[in-house]
Amino acid sequence: MASEGPGRPPNQGEPVPEWLKAEGEACDVVLSTRVRLARNLREVPFAAKANKDQRRLSLDLCRDQLLIAGISPRIAWQELHEAAGVQRALLVERHVISKQLSKGRVGGAGVGGVDDPRGVAYSLPDERVAIMVNEEDHLRIQVIRSGLSLSQAWQQANDIDDRMEAGLAYAYSERFGYLTCCPTNVGTGLRMSAMLHLPALRLTGDIEKVKRAAGDMNLAVRGFYGEGSDAVGDLFQISNQTTLGRSEAAILESLEAQILPRVIEYERLARRDLVAKRRTMLEDHVWRAFGVLSNARFMTTEEAMQSLSLLRLGALLGVLPATPALDLRAINLLLLLIQPAHLQRAVGQELDQEQRRMARATLLRDRVRC
Amino acid sequence: MASEGPGRPPNQGEPVPEWLKAEGEACDVVLSTRVRLARNLREVPFAAKANKDQRRLSLDLCRDQLLIAGISPRIAWQELHEAAGVQRALLVERHVISKQLSKGRVGGAGVGGVDDPRGVAYSLPDERVAIMVNEEDHLRIQVIRSGLSLSQAWQQANDIDDRMEAGLAYAYSERFGYLTCCPTNVGTGLRMSAMLHLPALRLTGDIEKVKRAAGDMNLAVRGFYGEGSDAVGDLFQISNQTTLGRSEAAILESLEAQILPRVIEYERLARRDLVAKRRTMLEDHVWRAFGVLSNARFMTTEEAMQSLSLLRLGALLGVLPATPALDLRAINLLLLLIQPAHLQRAVGQELDQEQRRMARATLLRDRVRC
Repeated sequence: MASEGPGRPPNQGEPVPEWLKAEGEACDVVLSTRVRLARNLREVPFAAKANKDQRRLSLDLCRDQLLIAGISPRIAWQELHEAAGVQRALLVERHVISKQLSKGRVGGAGVGGVDDPRGVAYSLPDERVAIMVNEEDHLRIQVIRSGLSLSQAWQQANDIDDRMEAGLAYAYSERFGYLTCCPTNVGTGLRMSAMLHLPALRLTGDIEKVKRAAGDMNLAVRGFYGEGSDAVGDLFQISNQTTLGRSEAAILESLEAQILPRVIEYERLARRDLVAKRRTMLEDHVWRAFGVLSNARFMTTEEAMQSLSLLRLGALLGVLPATPALDLRAINLLLLLIQPAHLQRAVGQELDQEQRRMARATLLRDRVRC
Repeated sequence: MASEGPGRPPNQGEPVPEWLKAEGEACDVVLSTRVRLARNLREVPFAAKANKDQRRLSLDLCRDQLLIAGISPRIAWQELHEAAGVQRALLVERHVISKQLSKGRVGGAGVGGVDDPRGVAYSLPDERVAIMVNEEDHLRIQVIRSGLSLSQAWQQANDIDDRMEAGLAYAYSERFGYLTCCPTNVGTGLRMSAMLHLPALRLTGDIEKVKRAAGDMNLAVRGFYGEGSDAVGDLFQISNQTTLGRSEAAILESLEAQILPRVIEYERLARRDLVAKRRTMLEDHVWRAFGVLSNARFMTTEEAMQSLSLLRLGALLGVLPATPALDLRAINLLLLLIQPAHLQRAVGQELDQEQRRMARATLLRDRVRC
């Protein structure tokens, strides 16, 4: 693969980011799993309190260590305060950086801005590893894996953490563990999450039970673009809320061995039920989605994602013919290519909302076919 | 054409009733025009007051005259109190009889029932002429023409009226004119109407103006199946309300030469506007309808009619390719074939609502294609 990340126009050879590869365990339900560690430098004030010079300092310290730490055979470094808005938007859509890092504004504290020093390092070409500098914390180490693969993601994140710590002095308390900007991350600084595709549970209406059960188990349920985003496209991000007083191993074990397998089985049961007892209803939903995707001339992101969700379900359950255009990875990739910044990159110019809706429909008509 | 009316299964050779032929003046907007005369026999009590024997008498008198009057080279006579429910439903869907005549119950008065003597004569194979006996009035003479053709329809209805009057004594008052069961028909007993397809005015939102203007001119605006039915499929029936104190010629002149041409021009203007200024929005609507019609597995009558309306607009405005499956007459005919009784005739058995929705979607997938 000759291409390198978000810099080239998309085509059939678009490099597929790790989280859309449709590989690994339970990838029929689990789009991806993700491990994130929050770390801060001892010698620089936390982001909410730092001035521009201090941010520049934490950025330089982290970047230097990133480039010598050997965290990936190939890695890209991007200083985000110097990047164009569309470049930052592309990285947000690819889940390489958060919206917050894109804006340069530290959440609750409301400090900082688009010119404030901050950056991201990410592995090429798969974007499996992404390390944000000067987001809410000085360092946010993220490892994403296709399918259910928290252990491996955790292992890699832990390894990167060690390599970074080898050259950086972390803020750490014997009593509390790793210190973070927001108290909800203090302790392990660890967040583990899975991006689940739960269309059958939505169709049967049982999705609300899953949400309630997750809440009872102190898990967070979020949408496709994390905190504050809606669960469009039947995509739900389930993650641990607790970082204090539980070991990394305990968090991993509870999510990977207990909670996620149950949700996965629940969704699979609902899918089998649709096939066995409500096949025509299922086919109606899937084929209508196909009909709209392959014929519309205007489409919002939300409608596209909802229709692609049904297409994905149809591909998985054998409702749609097994053609290359309708395989799981091709459909997953469309979830990314229909996003606003990717559309604008594809046509090579800025588009207003109406133009984006047209470009989105055109791309989908071109790619969604039997 | 060897087939004769609603008795045979539909196929590509289904005889197209007059009102769906897509012929004649302004047939891009005017599906059909219709003239109806209400007449009663002097010697038999009106329907609301008649007992079963008296209804039998009016039925016999009218039927005998119908069969000798020579109103059409070929005519079918059907005694509806002896017809199966599905056969009556087919005739209602084909606009040969009213729902009221199907039920055998005289409207406001609430007398009569399904066993009460009543019948219909209709011309074959086009069903252009239909004469109902013992509906609200003893005789209801209906002539339907494709396109805008009120004069010809009026001429033929008037001729049939003369032929019937030659052997029947009508209830007539020198002061009021023809006497009818309901006072709104007294005088000429004449109702003229046009079934208009107004999708562009609906899309631009100007349809409400047309409705208001029609109301101001003392015209009635009704749906596809007459009084009390909704305007599904963007089909609107506009008719005169006044029967007393205006001559037939005056009613005809005002509708055919003044009112209808204005509505037609208004719709055509809206269509040109869509093509010139909102082409992509138009294409989006049309192609989405195509996508749903050619892919859904379940469909209600309402959704099918609404989607067919857009398909019809797309065919007329050159948005869709000019294939035989998408020509105007083929689309018009689908408006009929998706109706419940026609679907049941097509599959040769009774269907519950869910089965009808499946059969409707199957028929549409089979027939709607590029």
